[in-house]
Amino acid sequence: MLDELKKEVLDANLALVKHGVVLFTWGNVSARDKETGLVVIKPSGVPYETMKAQQMVITDIDGNIVEGELSPSTDLPTHLEIYKADDSVRGVAHTHSTYATAFAQAGRSIPCYGTTHADYFYGAIPCARALTEQEVNGKYEENTGKVIRETFVGKSFESMPGALVKNHGVFSWGKSADNAVHNAVVIEEAAKMAIFSEILNPKLEQVPQYLLDKHYLRKHGKNAYYGQKK
Amino acid sequence: MLDELKKEVLDANLALVKHGVVLFTWGNVSARDKETGLVVIKPSGVPYETMKAQQMVITDIDGNIVEGELSPSTDLPTHLEIYKADDSVRGVAHTHSTYATAFAQAGRSIPCYGTTHADYFYGAIPCARALTEQEVNGKYEENTGKVIRETFVGKSFESMPGALVKNHGVFSWGKSADNAVHNAVVIEEAAKMAIFSEILNPKLEQVPQYLLDKHYLRKHGKNAYYGQKK
Amino acid sequence: MLDELKKEVLDANLALVKHGVVLFTWGNVSARDKETGLVVIKPSGVPYETMKAQQMVITDIDGNIVEGELSPSTDLPTHLEIYKADDSVRGVAHTHSTYATAFAQAGRSIPCYGTTHADYFYGAIPCARALTEQEVNGKYEENTGKVIRETFVGKSFESMPGALVKNHGVFSWGKSADNAVHNAVVIEEAAKMAIFSEILNPKLEQVPQYLLDKHYLRKHGKNAYYGQKK
Amino acid sequence: MLDELKKEVLDANLALVKHGVVLFTWGNVSARDKETGLVVIKPSGVPYETMKAQQMVITDIDGNIVEGELSPSTDLPTHLEIYKADDSVRGVAHTHSTYATAFAQAGRSIPCYGTTHADYFYGAIPCARALTEQEVNGKYEENTGKVIRETFVGKSFESMPGALVKNHGVFSWGKSADNAVHNAVVIEEAAKMAIFSEILNPKLEQVPQYLLDKHYLRKHGKNAYYGQKK
Repeated sequence: MLDELKKEVLDANLALVKHGVVLFTWGNVSARDKETGLVVIKPSGVPYETMKAQQMVITDIDGNIVEGELSPSTDLPTHLEIYKADDSVRGVAHTHSTYATAFAQAGRSIPCYGTTHADYFYGAIPCARALTEQEVNGKYEENTGKVIRETFVGKSFESMPGALVKNHGVFSWGKSADNAVHNAVVIEEAAKMAIFSEILNPKLEQVPQYLLDKHYLRKHGKNAYYGQKK
Repeated sequence: MLDELKKEVLDANLALVKHGVVLFTWGNVSARDKETGLVVIKPSGVPYETMKAQQMVITDIDGNIVEGELSPSTDLPTHLEIYKADDSVRGVAHTHSTYATAFAQAGRSIPCYGTTHADYFYGAIPCARALTEQEVNGKYEENTGKVIRETFVGKSFESMPGALVKNHGVFSWGKSADNAVHNAVVIEEAAKMAIFSEILNPKLEQVPQYLLDKHYLRKHGKNAYYGQKK
Repeated sequence: MLDELKKEVLDANLALVKHGVVLFTWGNVSARDKETGLVVIKPSGVPYETMKAQQMVITDIDGNIVEGELSPSTDLPTHLEIYKADDSVRGVAHTHSTYATAFAQAGRSIPCYGTTHADYFYGAIPCARALTEQEVNGKYEENTGKVIRETFVGKSFESMPGALVKNHGVFSWGKSADNAVHNAVVIEEAAKMAIFSEILNPKLEQVPQYLLDKHYLRKHGKNAYYGQKK
Repeated sequence: MLDELKKEVLDANLALVKHGVVLFTWGNVSARDKETGLVVIKPSGVPYETMKAQQMVITDIDGNIVEGELSPSTDLPTHLEIYKADDSVRGVAHTHSTYATAFAQAGRSIPCYGTTHADYFYGAIPCARALTEQEVNGKYEENTGKVIRETFVGKSFESMPGALVKNHGVFSWGKSADNAVHNAVVIEEAAKMAIFSEILNPKLEQVPQYLLDKHYLRKHGKNAYYGQKK
């Protein structure tokens, strides 16, 4: 069932390793099937080297297992909250990549200091608030998704395909598992550039709105002109 | 047409990846044919892994497509401005490499702190001014080339084969596509060294003029004595 | 004798190289056999490229050689102190990994700034005090183990599987040689994240206790729910 | 002539690339033959990928070419000064490795903050003074060697097998070409650790003398006990 999507999810998980944004089993990727609405996610704690497409776990939007012998990634409830928040999201990735996690640990959003960032994210990549003790001791992973949703009230998951969770790490998403991973890699690179930009200029401010508009809209929306005509 | 140059341009684009100065499709390289004056550039948004020499796009100096089925790199008009500015330029490269882009984002030129830098660049690598809102909303990529040209009024493209564009990234050039890439790699390394040099010594000043003269002229110009006699 | 364990110790030593936490011969790993209590350790100063399982040295808990033609790693007495301190320790690793060693050189413990750290270490990774002149000139390697033990008085080697030694580097341990190496890699990554977190937020404090409890206990102890059910 | 030594010098030059301490052709290594006193050095500006042992150049101690069709590395006169300064030196390496060059550009010696450094270098790795205008415009490369020698008056080339040259980079040496490269790699790692140690603790001081004595003498001199008995 959903064999092609399982393969895509496996490949996307392996791409996390290839791009250097996960160590060991610290990341996970899922995808949502367009027709059935079912979610395919990597199993928990299985090493990437030996992972097989057939080990991917299928659940419904409430996390009930539909197919799979292994337990799904512990972070599944966070993924599900993101899928619930926005129908356009078809893939979700989670990493503890070094520089982006440094921003999360510092409790800071990643400011938009340049076009590299603006090509993908329409403004600062927000850092969700810390969970309260009650939220941590309750449905922790679900609540992690909820603080992300809270951060996005009035904002678009499409024009800001990622967020940090305070003291934790990165969640990113997109129109496929692969696209979610791509965005996770960009967040890491944008974070690294931002750290060194601030070291070079401690009074640095974000790019002007007109440059943000230009770059984001050059690649997204009706008037995009980057890449090949379709 | 220009098959050899297409191969050179493809190889130079792949060299960007090999040297770690581009992620995904964030860079581009072009070359200008000496005889015809035509420019060969990589297509827009095509992944490096599957790119073929035959996909390179040929345009004239005004950007009119002479050969090729794909759209040229979006940054083509910036490349063309650089070719127009100086006849000696035969190759142009563009990257968002991490440390050099941090300088661009910080709005700072890369100071010349040592001989590594001085061997290639005759002084600080300049950061062009930010584009105005009008320039961004007009012919953006062409205007990007124009602020670089503005920065070089009274300066030589030959003795300073690269520049930063504020809030954006790196443009470099040289006597071939390969040479432009080489200079892009050096800019990244010079930027990285400069950041850590400033951390180690916040009051650091540039090298004295006589050391800059010595190193630059040891490798360039009539009295060069580095490398093999030709 | 103990051929399987020798192979595990060799593989764990090679894993140090693979994960980028040692240069040249700067690291070492040992394991303790559950039944006999004997310790298997890498020989001193042998390059990793040519090391063979048969070259691993077997000693008793007091460092007397039981089998092996080469001298054991100079750091053996430090390993032995750690084994003596806690029966649950079955593997010990030693590295000079870059960022963790920077903490050791700075004489600072690695604060727990996030869940990446909290998933493995139940609090700040402690930096043992500097050895006195007498301790250095006496049984130096044994005394290195003793200051680690001193640091752990009243603490658990199981919930804090690693420590720094001031001006020196990292010792880590675990339920096997491989697990000790795993923890050494996590210490390096936690250190790197911590440095950049502090750069981004100089007033940063450690994570709240409830988050530390949640993450550490999610992966360890009776109520762990990370990974696959056993 | 000296075919074996040529192979050693080639291998040592390639090891610079393998260990990530040179980009392009920015480094060079030489060795001195024990019997004849002749020096074998890499040719100038030849890419590492295509370099052959037969291209190595042989000169006498005054730089007169004894064998070889290519020009020797431009830095040859610096190497020769180092050989002249101390008979025990059998190999010399030169790099522009990132973090060590940052120290050189900052005009600072690399302090000894830990045992990683102390295992190889008996104190701070000195940064030689900047050359005067006259020295730069005169026999520049020879004068570079002379300021290194000046730095070592009253010091031992054996217990301090490397130095920085202000605004330039790293020279290291040892009992063979391979050993000189090894020391260049250690200098880079010591520099990187030192930078981050200072970031973590801006008031950091060097290790106490007794720790320096212990570590340096544990690996060097009559009472060394690291590695295998010979």
